[in-house]
Amino acid sequence: MPEFLTLLPPQESLDKLLRNIPDPKLATETIDTISAIGRVIATDLLAPHALPEFPRSTVDGFAVKAADTYGASDSLPAYLNLIGECPMGATPDLVIKPTTTAIIHTGGMLPEGADAVVMLEYTQQTVDDEMEILRAVADGENVINIGEDVAEGALIKPKGSVIRPAEVGGLMALGFTQVEVAVRPKVGIISSGDEVIHPAERPQPGQVRDINSYTLASLVEKTGGEAVRYGIVADKMDAMLVAIAKALAECEMVLITAGSSASARDMTAAAIDQLGEPGVLVHGVNTRPGKPTILGVCDGKAVIGLPGNPVSALVNGYVFVVPLVRRLLGQSVEMVQPSVRAKLTVNIPSQAGREDWIPIKLTETAEKSYLAKPIFGKSNLIFTLVGADGLLKIAPDATGLSAGEMVEVLLV
Amino acid sequence: MPEFLTLLPPQESLDKLLRNIPDPKLATETIDTISAIGRVIATDLLAPHALPEFPRSTVDGFAVKAADTYGASDSLPAYLNLIGECPMGATPDLVIKPTTTAIIHTGGMLPEGADAVVMLEYTQQTVDDEMEILRAVADGENVINIGEDVAEGALIKPKGSVIRPAEVGGLMALGFTQVEVAVRPKVGIISSGDEVIHPAERPQPGQVRDINSYTLASLVEKTGGEAVRYGIVADKMDAMLVAIAKALAECEMVLITAGSSASARDMTAAAIDQLGEPGVLVHGVNTRPGKPTILGVCDGKAVIGLPGNPVSALVNGYVFVVPLVRRLLGQSVEMVQPSVRAKLTVNIPSQAGREDWIPIKLTETAEKSYLAKPIFGKSNLIFTLVGADGLLKIAPDATGLSAGEMVEVLLV
Repeated sequence: MPEFLTLLPPQESLDKLLRNIPDPKLATETIDTISAIGRVIATDLLAPHALPEFPRSTVDGFAVKAADTYGASDSLPAYLNLIGECPMGATPDLVIKPTTTAIIHTGGMLPEGADAVVMLEYTQQTVDDEMEILRAVADGENVINIGEDVAEGALIKPKGSVIRPAEVGGLMALGFTQVEVAVRPKVGIISSGDEVIHPAERPQPGQVRDINSYTLASLVEKTGGEAVRYGIVADKMDAMLVAIAKALAECEMVLITAGSSASARDMTAAAIDQLGEPGVLVHGVNTRPGKPTILGVCDGKAVIGLPGNPVSALVNGYVFVVPLVRRLLGQSVEMVQPSVRAKLTVNIPSQAGREDWIPIKLTETAEKSYLAKPIFGKSNLIFTLVGADGLLKIAPDATGLSAGEMVEVLLV
Repeated sequence: MPEFLTLLPPQESLDKLLRNIPDPKLATETIDTISAIGRVIATDLLAPHALPEFPRSTVDGFAVKAADTYGASDSLPAYLNLIGECPMGATPDLVIKPTTTAIIHTGGMLPEGADAVVMLEYTQQTVDDEMEILRAVADGENVINIGEDVAEGALIKPKGSVIRPAEVGGLMALGFTQVEVAVRPKVGIISSGDEVIHPAERPQPGQVRDINSYTLASLVEKTGGEAVRYGIVADKMDAMLVAIAKALAECEMVLITAGSSASARDMTAAAIDQLGEPGVLVHGVNTRPGKPTILGVCDGKAVIGLPGNPVSALVNGYVFVVPLVRRLLGQSVEMVQPSVRAKLTVNIPSQAGREDWIPIKLTETAEKSYLAKPIFGKSNLIFTLVGADGLLKIAPDATGLSAGEMVEVLLV
């Protein structure tokens, strides 16, 4: 097995691949902000104006000059002249002069002359046009000042950020009903193997349905890319070359799940070497599952040969494909990974020097903490992943984990 | 402020609401599995056949009768007669009898008579039709047996499960190219407030753009629902009644972000009481932000009045709207929440008895752990959430958290 003589650690493998890909030229498109959830902002977004643009009350109460309330208390109220009510959604047509006040509602614009608001519950009406103020307020109290939410010209979100519900709100608040986002990068997916058939067909003895085209396509789409499936290609060099060349021409990145045999993997590697420079960079990764993974670059585009075993293909999709799609989207490769902290239920042995990925089933305890139960199984068994809530990484420098240890389970 | 005399804790509030909604009659639709990522499975899925349906090799090597290899070693090999090669994707037309063997590739179907596979690297060819076997294998070694991935008739995924890439693979492996999923429940969203204008308009002094319709719509869509926006309704009882009644008729659930003033909130509550039984269930929740939240049910449909402040509206969307949408989808209300464990950078005070939600900015340290930095700010400031990576919950029984404590930050 000369191909596996020099297994690289996963992180080093990924770094090598990333170093050999030029910075992507980001294609962008402008879309409606309301449809932009999950998309990636393509340009640094600056605030076109301050928010708010006028001082607003944060409570229901009375607009005042703070100085008029100093020393006010239940036993010694300040007395102010009620001169009117501030309208919602318009400039108040009244001016707060010393010893006067006006009704103001939450969100209302502060009238000229006022610099604070006294909450309704700390006031009392004595006669029609006189208010007792029972608490002192400081200058600016219960008020949002101009630009307190965001200042004019401030960077509101850097390019590469994912749009979540909060960003949709921030964009709308500033009038960005449209937003420029990264075009979803096309990722070509080729499945191969003479035993592999389309899922709609009924397998004959010896045949299996294609799984990897679909798990990888789903992963690509979930990550923000556009999956282009090229179907099942025969385990023959000429058919492989034609399929990969077509995918390379049409996509930003290509995934091949080779037939699982050594000869099929060698063919994938040979095809990558033939189709562009520098060709194969990593042939064999020190990870389980996923040792036969091949990482290559053909004239600036990443080509990844994933093992045919469905668990290996999907787990290594999380490890290698997700960061590459993020890079093509202009995102940071190292993003916060959603995870759950849980207590391991059993010992897990692991070979030193190798990175292991273990499917984990989480169960919640009565104390609202989680137990992590490993699902052991061969890397051909897709249902080990179907039954799992997440994946546990055992770092190369560990020789295993002990029952009772707290571990971080990556949610997938 | 009589309305807030009886503040309920958030969890109790949610439970009360859920108890008052009948189990939803799940509407389902059948869609292509490849487009089903993120959708919710509507029926228990059973395996129509075993997987695999025939024993397969997990390695490249030689199909054998295990008994023929017992005691074999480098110094004392077993000698077997090579009778051929198993094809990929078809039934081998050869039979392994005692002292015979055949070449087999990873994923290939085991020939009749064989019960184990010896890995290629533990074999050596002596003459054309003779193989040296250098290691013993046990019965079933390097073989996946019939039904080892999943047994015929087994529950492969219960209804209410979300479809991830792994499920897409599992479904395809069993020939489910289509899948029955829950129809995305319609959630009506009404914004109100005389100061609120459409985001495409330029605010005049005193006016603000509508944020809540869009953050809540995004949250609903992200959770798997279909948001139906009913625009901005005037702060007038008759307009409110008409809008809520229309939304109730057309949707499974209705959200109203009231104008932020007390009178506007009272109007929302009065409208809910008028439009169906039992009406308002919770008026005021012991949480910050979000105290003025109103939870009600009109003839079986949840109606939630959220505060007008954009941070309150979105945070309480995560607390109350997400579980309700999940329930309408037939999901478990209590799902695993993606979170990140991080070290708090500063003390956070909190009032005992009240649940606090604090926006958190995460930064990664050189040691690959996370620091959690609170973003303090008034609940009107949407950019406190735009700048945050997640939310930190301070439970009602805590009086605060200390700098240096490890906390779970919910990713939003």
